[in-house]
Amino acid sequence: MLILVSNVGSSSYKYQIIDIETEKMLTKGVVERIGNPPSTFTHSVPDKPDLEGEIDAPDHNAAVAHVIKLLLSQEHGVLKDLSELAGVGFKTIFAQGITRSALVTEDVIAALEEYIPVAPVHNPPYIASIRAFQKVLPGKPLVAVFETWFHESVPDYAYEYGVPREWVEKYNIRRYGFHGASHRYISQRTSQLLRIPAEELKIISCHLGGSSSLCAIKYGNSIDTSMGFSTQGGTLQSTRVGDLDPFAVLYVMDKEGLTADEVRTILTKNSGVLGISEVSGDMRDVEEAAAEENDNARLALDTFHYGVKKYIGAYVAALGGVDAIVFTGGIGEKGKRSREAICDGLEFMGIKLDAEKNAAHKGEGIISADDSRVKILVVPTNEELIVARETARVIEHGESNHI
Amino acid sequence: MLILVSNVGSSSYKYQIIDIETEKMLTKGVVERIGNPPSTFTHSVPDKPDLEGEIDAPDHNAAVAHVIKLLLSQEHGVLKDLSELAGVGFKTIFAQGITRSALVTEDVIAALEEYIPVAPVHNPPYIASIRAFQKVLPGKPLVAVFETWFHESVPDYAYEYGVPREWVEKYNIRRYGFHGASHRYISQRTSQLLRIPAEELKIISCHLGGSSSLCAIKYGNSIDTSMGFSTQGGTLQSTRVGDLDPFAVLYVMDKEGLTADEVRTILTKNSGVLGISEVSGDMRDVEEAAAEENDNARLALDTFHYGVKKYIGAYVAALGGVDAIVFTGGIGEKGKRSREAICDGLEFMGIKLDAEKNAAHKGEGIISADDSRVKILVVPTNEELIVARETARVIEHGESNHI
Repeated sequence: MLILVSNVGSSSYKYQIIDIETEKMLTKGVVERIGNPPSTFTHSVPDKPDLEGEIDAPDHNAAVAHVIKLLLSQEHGVLKDLSELAGVGFKTIFAQGITRSALVTEDVIAALEEYIPVAPVHNPPYIASIRAFQKVLPGKPLVAVFETWFHESVPDYAYEYGVPREWVEKYNIRRYGFHGASHRYISQRTSQLLRIPAEELKIISCHLGGSSSLCAIKYGNSIDTSMGFSTQGGTLQSTRVGDLDPFAVLYVMDKEGLTADEVRTILTKNSGVLGISEVSGDMRDVEEAAAEENDNARLALDTFHYGVKKYIGAYVAALGGVDAIVFTGGIGEKGKRSREAICDGLEFMGIKLDAEKNAAHKGEGIISADDSRVKILVVPTNEELIVARETARVIEHGESNHI
Repeated sequence: MLILVSNVGSSSYKYQIIDIETEKMLTKGVVERIGNPPSTFTHSVPDKPDLEGEIDAPDHNAAVAHVIKLLLSQEHGVLKDLSELAGVGFKTIFAQGITRSALVTEDVIAALEEYIPVAPVHNPPYIASIRAFQKVLPGKPLVAVFETWFHESVPDYAYEYGVPREWVEKYNIRRYGFHGASHRYISQRTSQLLRIPAEELKIISCHLGGSSSLCAIKYGNSIDTSMGFSTQGGTLQSTRVGDLDPFAVLYVMDKEGLTADEVRTILTKNSGVLGISEVSGDMRDVEEAAAEENDNARLALDTFHYGVKKYIGAYVAALGGVDAIVFTGGIGEKGKRSREAICDGLEFMGIKLDAEKNAAHKGEGIISADDSRVKILVVPTNEELIVARETARVIEHGESNHI
């Protein structure tokens, strides 16, 4: 059973085809700078040279049409006919009233539309790319695998905000949490690597990248996560603000006469590591600037690391102890300086990095000191695999079943 | 040197007179239900029976006038003449551009007025009571001791939000922190009780009451605290919301067509423990309702305790270990069930409560198990003493000196 997995950004479309029986990836690729010419693409098939080039992709429709053509092409394709695809899975973020997975219907699209103000960066391109697939693959099952899904096990006292019950009852205001596919993968993969059943492990999964969140995983289930009602909450992110006193927002709105939409744009696109550093939302650029004694860049790094460190402490308390801290995502996987800064000072909790292992580390493995009570790991995430598995499950068994 | 300390609420005025040389309290009292007849008052002088009664106090002017009369009365007073008072100290919260202490001038009052949207519950009654004292005690030094003061030592990476630098530069948007007098007292008193210099201690001060905040104190200095730009941030409070994803606020504002002022009122007065439980903002009422299987009350308690527990974990990480956890404030001093629920599961960090000591505890002392690596204490706070000391210091040495 072949599943096409779609991971959509505001100006990008990433895809993979995964064979569910073998869990092998047949092809993957990305179209970038959609709507911002020249658009570019990369298309990879294992054991073949990558194909790269420029195309005319004014919108997600054009990007999807281009990818379909590539998938079927004699030279670079992996499909003879689109009927070989069992369905398409979308790594969707959040829609009103849906926290798990759903076969895409007009109701699901309406629920995505309703939450555009909550997920302003994500929902519009997902809606556009779903619409594109409805045209290209009419009748083929499209499955939305929501990032909130893994966090259904979070207990009420951990997801509840202190807002009036009326806000909960009328508008479902609570923490939901995101990066569900990644944190679920980390839970399963860490169990395999440590050869300890997930049901016996307490893990803190640190997904740090362009978008960052932490998850406290107890015996295979999420019991808390740092993002909240939207993907804004929690730790500082690349260009998103993270935790913020709502009175600060109201104060600036009053002073500047900003609308809610204007504030949403600022807190989503001009904040976080970019907002503090005024250099970039990319940690590599910020590290470089900090090395050249740019104090705002130094402050952005320190604030990012300190925030993650505090979440780790909070989750050790929430879990009543911890067996493994796992780093994933672009910064988690490659940011050796970040991993070192985050772990520094956590020895009191039995968390002790091996500086040499950490500095030399590549790929998947353990970077804690031999005498560290808690294992520290780096595990490249594989969200697409989780989305593919869940898409196949929904196609075969329907959307109401638990995994 | 006698200092009158003023602790002002929206409908209450509390006072103490403290002799700075002996640090003895000569009298204390409170006027309640100001503007909401019948107003009531209690006036205490050590070793005399308390005086209680009803008065006509339509505003803070009337309340202050009544207290001055009591202080001078033959039967219940402690002063022969108002000239015996060296000055009046106000436990003020927050004003634009002032984080420490200040002799009250028209500029200070204007700075308090500017931050009414940030401290909507506190600043208006403080302004009213300062005005009342300007009339009753013309020329007498009035000193505003701001609750942000103790947190001046917090490093930049801990007080920075992920907002654009423009918000910082134009509007000073950052974490400030409050309850400074209480956390400072806890730091000093814990050092005395443990007979270890403050300069060698790592303490987490948990001020839990109608208003709640935690403070990480390293070697006598605040290095982090849970409240933020306003007194709203941090842990769940009696009727205040605590940490909240700003996108949730914007979403409900859009849906309900609420103004910023309406939202401020909801998040200040109808949220927190009251908002979740729909029973009360008073923990005693909520505990009673939870015992009668009111599930919203159970949820409010669980959410409150869990939030404090997570902050303790975060601050253990921030401090790189901890020597003492100290409970203070109404709930911290009297809430034995709360202390137990908060400490439950923290054994991994060397924090181990003695259940019997905790249940039987009254007043000041240690409630951790003998083999607990971290001491757990209950210490009734004394904010008035800190305000009196700082008021005397400002009167004698001016406002620019450090303590």
